[in-house]
Amino acid sequence: KHSFNIAVIAGDGIGKEVMPEGLRVLDAAARRFGIALHYKHIEWSSCDYHAVHGKMMPDDWKAQLAGVDAIYFGAVGWPDAVPDHISLWGSILKFRREFDQYINLRPARLFEGVPCPLANRKPGDIDFMIVRENTEGEYSSVGGVMYEGTEREVVMQQSVFSRHGTDRLLKFAFELARKRERKHLTVATKSNGIAVSMPWWDGRAAEIAAGYPDVRWDKQHIDILSARFVLQPQRFDVVAASNLFGDILSDLGPACTGTLGLAPSANLNPERRFPSLFEPVHGSAPDIYGKNIANPVGMIWSGALMLDFIDQSGTVGRQAHDAILAAIEQVLAEGPRTPDLGGSASTTEMGKAIAAAV
Amino acid sequence: KHSFNIAVIAGDGIGKEVMPEGLRVLDAAARRFGIALHYKHIEWSSCDYHAVHGKMMPDDWKAQLAGVDAIYFGAVGWPDAVPDHISLWGSILKFRREFDQYINLRPARLFEGVPCPLANRKPGDIDFMIVRENTEGEYSSVGGVMYEGTEREVVMQQSVFSRHGTDRLLKFAFELARKRERKHLTVATKSNGIAVSMPWWDGRAAEIAAGYPDVRWDKQHIDILSARFVLQPQRFDVVAASNLFGDILSDLGPACTGTLGLAPSANLNPERRFPSLFEPVHGSAPDIYGKNIANPVGMIWSGALMLDFIDQSGTVGRQAHDAILAAIEQVLAEGPRTPDLGGSASTTEMGKAIAAAV
Ligand SMILES: CC(C)[C@H](C(=O)O)[C@@H](O)C(=O)O
Ligand SMILES: CC(C)[C@H](C(=O)O)[C@@H](O)C(=O)O
Repeated sequence: KHSFNIAVIAGDGIGKEVMPEGLRVLDAAARRFGIALHYKHIEWSSCDYHAVHGKMMPDDWKAQLAGVDAIYFGAVGWPDAVPDHISLWGSILKFRREFDQYINLRPARLFEGVPCPLANRKPGDIDFMIVRENTEGEYSSVGGVMYEGTEREVVMQQSVFSRHGTDRLLKFAFELARKRERKHLTVATKSNGIAVSMPWWDGRAAEIAAGYPDVRWDKQHIDILSARFVLQPQRFDVVAASNLFGDILSDLGPACTGTLGLAPSANLNPERRFPSLFEPVHGSAPDIYGKNIANPVGMIWSGALMLDFIDQSGTVGRQAHDAILAAIEQVLAEGPRTPDLGGSASTTEMGKAIAAAV
Repeated sequence: KHSFNIAVIAGDGIGKEVMPEGLRVLDAAARRFGIALHYKHIEWSSCDYHAVHGKMMPDDWKAQLAGVDAIYFGAVGWPDAVPDHISLWGSILKFRREFDQYINLRPARLFEGVPCPLANRKPGDIDFMIVRENTEGEYSSVGGVMYEGTEREVVMQQSVFSRHGTDRLLKFAFELARKRERKHLTVATKSNGIAVSMPWWDGRAAEIAAGYPDVRWDKQHIDILSARFVLQPQRFDVVAASNLFGDILSDLGPACTGTLGLAPSANLNPERRFPSLFEPVHGSAPDIYGKNIANPVGMIWSGALMLDFIDQSGTVGRQAHDAILAAIEQVLAEGPRTPDLGGSASTTEMGKAIAAAV
């Protein structure tokens, strides 16, 4: 009954190291809650597939993913093998766009046992959710170079915002805020400097907000908003942001909670017309790859988000999610912990401990 | 001999409160170092000029500023009076662009006596300089709306980077890094996501870098770079960034040193074909205006940067700069301090103390 098909793409670098721990914990949760998970392991990465075929994925990648309920994704990118923008536009950014995963949900939460880089903050002070637009805006491949290769060279990079794309993002964020205790939404903007798109974006926010009188909301320029993540993180509940602003805030937010290694993300197509994708916020981290010291929590937490999303009954998936979160909390507080958290455990040890706690 | 004409524009909100303290300290330094400063007070602001004339400045604003050596600027913007993007494009952004102030120099430094929002950081751990491109890039008014007012609405916002504009920014940043002790430059980018302009920007950085073999440099994506401001601020020396990325980093950097109220900026036309402009990083802060509690240090420090820049002899201006900085350091350590620093002094008291220490 609760049976799901999951495409598993470990990718490059530490993606290969954290993925086994993600699967270990998923399996533990699946056993406990009577969920059947069928994995389809796929090796699309810069170092493997691209190295052989000169591209990140086969041409029939969509067909190969037809019928999966979700994609569980590690990380891609290996600059020595393929330039970053090629590996990413050929993989993760392609999924986001072609599977219309227009919501990128990224929680930031301070846990017991995790050394916080901010002074005098305790668990509970930082607990917010970033809702990032994931398909358009500043991430576009539209643009070009004029007078190429000369002194007069000019480069144009188009940001493209559609009403359709902006409204659905804002609505999702308002809906989410409405369901939370504090019912507060902050909308990131930069309408004082980016003169065409951002005043328009503010207008969309104001119009959508009118439909949510029960949600308190404000808009903040991205510069001061970033500063406030550091100075007043307790002030945030849900934060809605464009693709680029959401990218920045969703590294900065988790950094304020101690380490990017914890941060999960859910790339959602809420209508379920296409598979959604779950991945840690961190990248392939060539600098620490091969040592088995990467923090597996971002991967594991992403798995929890996945179970919650794919189970539409709202029962076992939710329960499995909560159990994994509780296990993460327990292991963060009691250890074993990886070196980024001040511990000396390996990726595997930490993954096993979390699986055991589930 | 050392005689300069300064246009003084206090602007809106707390600009009006911190400006008198900026002038008080400038006067003290001028007296001590034998510098004659001639002020031309100009009331161009949202609440004054715009309220009467329906625009931020008279049409002959350039003529009125002809012959000044520098502009000493408070803050503009008063959302209740004029939409932000109108007040700013009619004032500060216009100066930056039309006076070709293509360098925006913004130091971030942690001082003794200032409570740091980051855990376990001491003065010396944070001391870097942001070199922000100030005339082009993401801040453009080029773009427009298609299918306006309909469900199909699409907004295009052009970012425009010229080789001329990018190279001169990068060269300035490399030159600055070369003069500093650590000789390290970080170039902000986002070439993995912003697919046209940013890979090109990386290419420019690599080409310019070849001329500075004595400077160690690296490039970092803006998302992880923001995270590192919080996690490893000691790692930065000089940071070169596009207009938008520099805007974000130069609020975030000072936030990590305790308060935006300290942060100064120099909007430079290094060739001195046009006047340069010196202003605090903070804005007009409607929420605290009228209470005489704004921190005057950003304004005062900006004045120090101004004296240093306008005196081409490199003697008295430099000395006055250093004396003001020493006075700021002393008062931050010993008080009186404004409420944002945990003190209870007024703007005026803090300004007077710094002037006395000069
Ligand atoms: C007021 C605004 C347009 C301005 C900017 O974004 O440049 C300000 O934030 C700054 O940093 O000077
Ligand atoms: C790898 C990169 C293209 C990606 C992004 O910018 O979206 C990453 O930083 C993320 O946040 O998922």
